[in-house]
Amino acid sequence: MTNIEFSKMTGRLKRTEIREILKLTRKPGTISFGGGLPDPAIFPYEAVEAASRRAIREKGRLALQYSPTEGEGFLKEQISLYLAKNGETVAPDQTLVVASSQQALDLLGKVFIDPGSPIIIERPSYAGAIQAFTAFGADFHGVDMDDEGVIPELLERKVTDLIGQRRKPRFVYLIPDFQNPSGINLTLERRKKILGIASKYNLVIVEDSPYRELRYRGDLIPSLWSLDTEGRVIQLKTLSKIFCPGFRIGWIAAPPEILDKLVMAKQGTDLCTSAYVSIVTAFLFEDGHIERQAKLSRDLYVRKAGAMLKALEKNFEGIEGVSWSHPEGGMFLWLRLPGGIDTVDLIPDAVDAGVAYVVGSCFYTDGSGRNEMRLNYSYPTEEQIERGVRLLAGLCRKRISEGVVCR
Amino acid sequence: MTNIEFSKMTGRLKRTEIREILKLTRKPGTISFGGGLPDPAIFPYEAVEAASRRAIREKGRLALQYSPTEGEGFLKEQISLYLAKNGETVAPDQTLVVASSQQALDLLGKVFIDPGSPIIIERPSYAGAIQAFTAFGADFHGVDMDDEGVIPELLERKVTDLIGQRRKPRFVYLIPDFQNPSGINLTLERRKKILGIASKYNLVIVEDSPYRELRYRGDLIPSLWSLDTEGRVIQLKTLSKIFCPGFRIGWIAAPPEILDKLVMAKQGTDLCTSAYVSIVTAFLFEDGHIERQAKLSRDLYVRKAGAMLKALEKNFEGIEGVSWSHPEGGMFLWLRLPGGIDTVDLIPDAVDAGVAYVVGSCFYTDGSGRNEMRLNYSYPTEEQIERGVRLLAGLCRKRISEGVVCR
Repeated sequence: MTNIEFSKMTGRLKRTEIREILKLTRKPGTISFGGGLPDPAIFPYEAVEAASRRAIREKGRLALQYSPTEGEGFLKEQISLYLAKNGETVAPDQTLVVASSQQALDLLGKVFIDPGSPIIIERPSYAGAIQAFTAFGADFHGVDMDDEGVIPELLERKVTDLIGQRRKPRFVYLIPDFQNPSGINLTLERRKKILGIASKYNLVIVEDSPYRELRYRGDLIPSLWSLDTEGRVIQLKTLSKIFCPGFRIGWIAAPPEILDKLVMAKQGTDLCTSAYVSIVTAFLFEDGHIERQAKLSRDLYVRKAGAMLKALEKNFEGIEGVSWSHPEGGMFLWLRLPGGIDTVDLIPDAVDAGVAYVVGSCFYTDGSGRNEMRLNYSYPTEEQIERGVRLLAGLCRKRISEGVVCR
Repeated sequence: MTNIEFSKMTGRLKRTEIREILKLTRKPGTISFGGGLPDPAIFPYEAVEAASRRAIREKGRLALQYSPTEGEGFLKEQISLYLAKNGETVAPDQTLVVASSQQALDLLGKVFIDPGSPIIIERPSYAGAIQAFTAFGADFHGVDMDDEGVIPELLERKVTDLIGQRRKPRFVYLIPDFQNPSGINLTLERRKKILGIASKYNLVIVEDSPYRELRYRGDLIPSLWSLDTEGRVIQLKTLSKIFCPGFRIGWIAAPPEILDKLVMAKQGTDLCTSAYVSIVTAFLFEDGHIERQAKLSRDLYVRKAGAMLKALEKNFEGIEGVSWSHPEGGMFLWLRLPGGIDTVDLIPDAVDAGVAYVVGSCFYTDGSGRNEMRLNYSYPTEEQIERGVRLLAGLCRKRISEGVVCR
């Protein structure tokens, strides 16, 4: 048939370049710095097998049935206990179990965003959040970051500008811990300042926190959720980065009025999250496997981050105008190339050479980041990291020799 | 915090009464004719345990990782083989794996519905679809059914009326096989007529098909998907009713242009469906467990349907103005009480008496169905069916003795 009439939302949808690049990671031989994939070499295969057996044998009737939209009670209790060990107070009835963070972002879009609604994000920010909010027609306002995270003074100026136009932001979306894509950690002082601004202007804060457990050094900084005394923080958590992405298990903690709307939105979205995977996950929490896996991941990724930093120093030596972040946690590193090199244009050559990355412009809503890229180091082996960075440096030198102007 | 500004979509959301009633089914002692729950007594516990073990041991690295947004290739191949055995030709690349039908409905809403977009549904129709489409602001136009299903002449009149107002429906949503909630099966002649109408007016048809395999007698009528020669049918399938709901696995088959938009919408919605559950499911398909379970379910539900029909005949004998459907498949039966009895008002008494059902008005968008209810017979035992129907008949007689006017 022809002339199919689609919705306005469809007009706003586009495939993210990250997901397209993820497909390349399945092409044998390509070194992928693209997706945010955990290393399958350390996946907890035996623990999952054992927990699955327990789920069927001990709670089979619940595991194969519909679960409540709010989530399986057993899982919600285990989540609460797990968070308590990490210094977070979250009661089971403050949570909604979701199909990982991406579903949380979609539900936030449903509940908060009308076409044209202003929202505030970090600059750069997570491409998947930009994609989810774009579908609902969000009007993005980016706030710059420095080495200590998003800059509170610039945030406040943006908020007052918008309020001056009678366009109060529906929420402020932040990734305080080891931000995706920059790897930057928001300091305690700034966390407090940002909550002060939120209080002054009565703002909702969304704290997306997939990487918090993957901290390489230094003290754990309290989350925005735990610093909040006014019920204005929504916290998103997922097991995709600290345990495994194949489960699609995450949760939202939110103040009651907001949680209620999110539950209603989830009802129409997919009724409930898989009871089977929820109960398997609850047993894994109970037996300490989630915590153990998070530590194992952190120990591996700190080594891989080191390998990538070493490879960058070695291979990009002498190239002017190149810089990169020094992550204290998480799974990403941010690379800035000389101004004249366009990382979108570079993709075909990179794929030919056998290395994949995500172009920087995916993480901006204003066309910035053309000479930037996000590099993931959790998925490739240390040997691939060394080789892949060497390939990237070679491509960069080739572009420069072809007469690229460095700004 | 106070004065939170939510989206217009939030204003349209409401909890479905079905989900609220589902909560009652977890209250010990209540006989639930409410949700569309399969009978856990026949859940394939051992098969799931074995397939989970295989998923980890044979395909663990894929099972615990992100899957492609389109769905795991292994599962898509198994789906295609399964459908071929049932006379449906669906290539793996014509499908998108989703978190069961409810997610398919949400994605259809995203891709097709703007606030005010006209869509056509059966009258009554599935409450979950009404809820999903309502969130996007659908303008519903219901078409009446008789014992042979939705009436083509009325459908055509509705279409021409709308087109005359320059408001062509974005799609026609139908549940041809053992419709939820009515249990009615659409005849072959009408299926062909409806496709003729769709062709004449260039309409998209959505065929929701969760119950097709649960056929008690008679020949299998070809699906709209298999009768379509013009690429205008979207078919939704789920394993929730024929295998188990705890997996949240379903799929959409659609023409390429539409599938492409649905994939983009899914990307922002939850990135992908659980690779773990997808691979477990693929092994269950491969080993014939899905097919076996569908047959086992059908054999049990035909007996339970018989038990409910028998209980209705026995207990409602002599009450004027009562009628019910005689399902040829599926898991629901539709009960009409005397006109003066309001099934919403009856709920507190029913819950006190220890029996739950879904009120008829959930399945209409125009406030109809006040004296109707949907009864599920797949979940309760035969003994509970007999007792629950007796309780309902008692409540009905009590209302009549209190002076309810039968219209």
